[in-house]
Amino acid sequence: MGYKEQTIEGRNAVMEAFRSGRTIDKLFVLKGCQDGPINSIIREARKQNTIISYVTGERLNQMSETGKHQGVVACAAAYEYAEVEDILRLAEEKGEPPFLFLLDGIEDPHNLGAIIRTANLAGAHGVIIPKRRAAGLTATVAKASAGALNYTPVAKVTNLGAVIEELKEKGLWFVCADMDGAAMYDLNLTGPIGMVIGNEGEGVSRLIREKCDYMAAIPMKGDIDSLNASVAAGVLAYEIVRQRMNAN
Amino acid sequence: MGYKEQTIEGRNAVMEAFRSGRTIDKLFVLKGCQDGPINSIIREARKQNTIISYVTGERLNQMSETGKHQGVVACAAAYEYAEVEDILRLAEEKGEPPFLFLLDGIEDPHNLGAIIRTANLAGAHGVIIPKRRAAGLTATVAKASAGALNYTPVAKVTNLGAVIEELKEKGLWFVCADMDGAAMYDLNLTGPIGMVIGNEGEGVSRLIREKCDYMAAIPMKGDIDSLNASVAAGVLAYEIVRQRMNAN
Repeated sequence: MGYKEQTIEGRNAVMEAFRSGRTIDKLFVLKGCQDGPINSIIREARKQNTIISYVTGERLNQMSETGKHQGVVACAAAYEYAEVEDILRLAEEKGEPPFLFLLDGIEDPHNLGAIIRTANLAGAHGVIIPKRRAAGLTATVAKASAGALNYTPVAKVTNLGAVIEELKEKGLWFVCADMDGAAMYDLNLTGPIGMVIGNEGEGVSRLIREKCDYMAAIPMKGDIDSLNASVAAGVLAYEIVRQRMNAN
Repeated sequence: MGYKEQTIEGRNAVMEAFRSGRTIDKLFVLKGCQDGPINSIIREARKQNTIISYVTGERLNQMSETGKHQGVVACAAAYEYAEVEDILRLAEEKGEPPFLFLLDGIEDPHNLGAIIRTANLAGAHGVIIPKRRAAGLTATVAKASAGALNYTPVAKVTNLGAVIEELKEKGLWFVCADMDGAAMYDLNLTGPIGMVIGNEGEGVSRLIREKCDYMAAIPMKGDIDSLNASVAAGVLAYEIVRQRMNAN
C-alpha cells in the first residue's frame, strides 16, 4: 500500500499521474496560465474533484524540486485512499458493528497521524476525512501514524454531511465531541457508530453537528477551553471501547 | 527556577498568558494585522500597559521558535517551575485527593504541551517531570499547552523514583500505563493517585515501573504497538476521571 508522498512537476508528468489513476491531493497551477496542455490538466483535475490552487510563479518555484515545473505542480497522496465501502466491508469481515472515525477538518498532520494511530488501536474500522480544509495523507501523517496507515483504511470524501446521511441509512449512529453535549459516560455509545471529531480551532461545524444523533462532552475540569484534537479523539474513542467491551 | 526572558507565540497562547495575569514585557504584532483575535489581544495589552511594537512578518519569524506565531509574539519571563509541595497544596486547597501526572522522560515538546493541557482539563493538580532526558518548558511546550501552563503547576525533579517514594509515604498510589498491565477498567483508580506516563519510544523505565502499585493497560485492538504518548496519557487520565466521578 505504501508509496511515498511526492510532488509531481511538469505538464507531461502531471497529466500522466492523473491518467494512471493516482490520487492527487492538490494541483497548483501558475496564475493566468491557460494554454491547451494546462487546460487539459485542469479538466482532468476537475473530473476527479481535485482541489486546484492558482498560485504565483514564485510559489511554484518554492515547491518545485527540479526547477522545471512548466507552470504546474501536483501533490500526490503518500498512501492510497480507501472507499467508504471498504471500511464497512472490513467491519463485516470482522463480524463487528461498524466503528468509524469522521474528522471534520483536522488540519495538523501530526494530529491526523496520531488519530489514525488511535483509530487502529481502538479497533475502529476506518477513518473518513473531507477533501477540503483538511490535511491529506502526507509523509508527515504517515510517520505520525506510526505505521497505522498500513492497516487502517482512510477514505477521503467530497461531502462529509452526505456521507453521514448515507451511513445513517445503513444503520449507523453518529456522535460528535462537543462540550455542549451530555457527559459521554451517560450516553449509550454501543452499536454501529461514527465518531465525529472537529477542527482544531473551531470544533465540529454546525452543519455536521446538526446531523449527529448525540453530542458527547468530555468532562472539562480545568481553566482552559479544550483538549488537543488527537487527545479528545482518543478519550472519546476509548469511552466507546469501554462501552463496547461491557456490551459484549 | 530562574526567570528567563521567553517568547510566547500564537494567538491562544498569548491571550491566555494575558488572561492568567502573567507579566508580559513586550508584545509584537504583525504590522497591518487587525482582525478580531489580534484586536482582543491588543486591547488586553493596553489594559495592562504592555509595550506594543508593530513589526514585519520577517521580524516575527526571526523571533519565533515554533514558526507558528500567527502574527503575534509576546515576551515574558520564562515559566516558573513549581515545587512538588505546591502541587499537593493545590489539591488540599481544592479539597480533593491529589491527582498528579508523572512523566518518565517525555521528549517531544508537542507531547509535553498536550499532556499539560490534558492535566489541566482532567482536573489534575500538577505535572512532575525529570530534569534529565526530558523536554523542559520551552515556547513550543507553552504553545502546545494552549495556555494550560499558566494554570497547571509543573515541577522538575532530579530523581523521579525518590519523589514517588516520598509521595507514597504521603498516601499516594501510583499507576503506570503499561501494556503488560491489567485492563485499566478493572483497576480501582480512585483516591490520591499519581499517573505515570513513559517515554515515547521505550515506555516507562523498569526502575520507575517497579515502584508503581498498578500497571494499567489501555486495551489495544489493532495492529501496531502503542498509542501516541499524549493520547495514552489522555485516555488513562480520563479513565481516572470517570472512576473519580463515580466514586463521589
